[in-house]
Amino acid sequence: MSDPLPSWNDGPAKQAIISFVTETVTRGGPKYVEQEERIATFDQDGTLWVEQPTYAQVMFTFHQLGVMAAKDPKLKDVEPFKTVLSGDSAAIAKLGVPELLKVVALTHSGTTVEVFQKTAHEWLTSAQHPHFKRLYTDLVYQPMLEVMHYVRANGYKTFIVTGGGQDFVRTYAERVYGVPRDQVVGSAGGITFGYDEGGKAILTKDPKLLWVDDKTGKPVDIHLMIGRRPVMAFGNADGDQAMLEYAQGGEGARFMLLVHHDDATREYAYGPESTLSPFSEALMARAHQGGWMVVSMKKDWRRIFAWQS
Amino acid sequence: MSDPLPSWNDGPAKQAIISFVTETVTRGGPKYVEQEERIATFDQDGTLWVEQPTYAQVMFTFHQLGVMAAKDPKLKDVEPFKTVLSGDSAAIAKLGVPELLKVVALTHSGTTVEVFQKTAHEWLTSAQHPHFKRLYTDLVYQPMLEVMHYVRANGYKTFIVTGGGQDFVRTYAERVYGVPRDQVVGSAGGITFGYDEGGKAILTKDPKLLWVDDKTGKPVDIHLMIGRRPVMAFGNADGDQAMLEYAQGGEGARFMLLVHHDDATREYAYGPESTLSPFSEALMARAHQGGWMVVSMKKDWRRIFAWQS
Repeated sequence: MSDPLPSWNDGPAKQAIISFVTETVTRGGPKYVEQEERIATFDQDGTLWVEQPTYAQVMFTFHQLGVMAAKDPKLKDVEPFKTVLSGDSAAIAKLGVPELLKVVALTHSGTTVEVFQKTAHEWLTSAQHPHFKRLYTDLVYQPMLEVMHYVRANGYKTFIVTGGGQDFVRTYAERVYGVPRDQVVGSAGGITFGYDEGGKAILTKDPKLLWVDDKTGKPVDIHLMIGRRPVMAFGNADGDQAMLEYAQGGEGARFMLLVHHDDATREYAYGPESTLSPFSEALMARAHQGGWMVVSMKKDWRRIFAWQS
Repeated sequence: MSDPLPSWNDGPAKQAIISFVTETVTRGGPKYVEQEERIATFDQDGTLWVEQPTYAQVMFTFHQLGVMAAKDPKLKDVEPFKTVLSGDSAAIAKLGVPELLKVVALTHSGTTVEVFQKTAHEWLTSAQHPHFKRLYTDLVYQPMLEVMHYVRANGYKTFIVTGGGQDFVRTYAERVYGVPRDQVVGSAGGITFGYDEGGKAILTKDPKLLWVDDKTGKPVDIHLMIGRRPVMAFGNADGDQAMLEYAQGGEGARFMLLVHHDDATREYAYGPESTLSPFSEALMARAHQGGWMVVSMKKDWRRIFAWQS
């Protein structure tokens, strides 16, 4: 049988994934899981693709603000847009979440859902990551893609459960991860039903934030959108703890995994100090207490990206 | 080739379904639809199963109130519970939606999501319909089940989009319709994350109503939960109009169908006068204007239930 995880180095992490999947699909075995229960949830930023130096969606948001300001120069006089448009990274870094959400609300609303999809798609197929100089969709972790393919080949249904906007992630999830749009759970803004000038029914994106899919919001949204406890859950930061705890709280076989960013050479090394996705000491302690697998990108991954040898 | 819709009489409705599905899966044909776009949405009450004399979930709600009042007799002194517990059908019929939602909030909260599932499952596997004297799950329309199987066999992903509570419908959707829990979109109440006494992560149902999946809420929730315009949409009442309009508003081949309850002998006959699911004259006019297929249960369905010859 060919190796289902060729980008993983041999070791306890790779072995644990293969053992778990094999045991849960072995009919009659003590860890067997019925097919309809085989739900695997994956955080996205930092778990499936690069999240440093900042989330791709934040880069998209800032880019869109520039596009909008070119058409409506008054935006340059209004905070927090003024600061973002100044390009002053020190000042931008000081913006709080409420300010950033104002920029997201402005740039993610006022169009039909189809126009937004097209706009996001165009950015994603042209914008380059500042360090790697590649499309963001080329910065998907090949070892995690292999895990997704492997569990799907064993009857698991894979879901993305992301703090990112679900409308943004759905633009590429199918093409990049093989995850259909209805299997992407994320943060969401309001949607309004109406008709266009020709009388066709349309949905328009509102500036209102409906929910943030992070921390305890993740298990809540998993219930609202999926309706089942995951059997396998994958994350990389404090925001994923509740999702992994929810997976573990169910009966029968359970598998929880955290990706630890400790490879400053091939990707990034960051932990508790990260402003984006802190991996706190408390989370590390929780992982050890719960028997969660902590993956070292440096040691456990033979390669990180598909384009690496 | 065997008949995919044996419970349908030959006629324009059956022919339209078969032609549409055949054409949309014929690669290279003018109506071809890519597999990932093949989304079919089905209303539930009155479209997939019997909704008269009242919704199954309302019967469940009233039953649960009785169970709760047996433990907590003070409920019998508080409106609107007092009226419901009196069993006075004339008085109950006069209760407004806000009063009924109070009963739903009380009976659908205060437990973990798993306990609620178990409670609903037990009721559904024992309660009988007052007229047919059968389980509600035996009152599924066999012709619609055949449509669901037929479109799925042709690569369509089937979703239920119901005004009913999604936690309730998910209890049986997989077993009865072959629709997995994550493909059930419905009304929803709040969910709170927490820990049980042993420290295990749990989700508890709140009395707060999050959204009602009816009328323009249906296309909005389709976007939030599915993320794609349906290519086929099936309903039976005014509450489904926006969903069918949303399906029709997309590009390429589209199929919209309304079930019309005109069979007083084998099921029920009702239309604009129904307090549950009115099929107004305006909806009939909209269907004709849009070229939507209106199915006569009396003429188009050879049998209505699987247990009928």
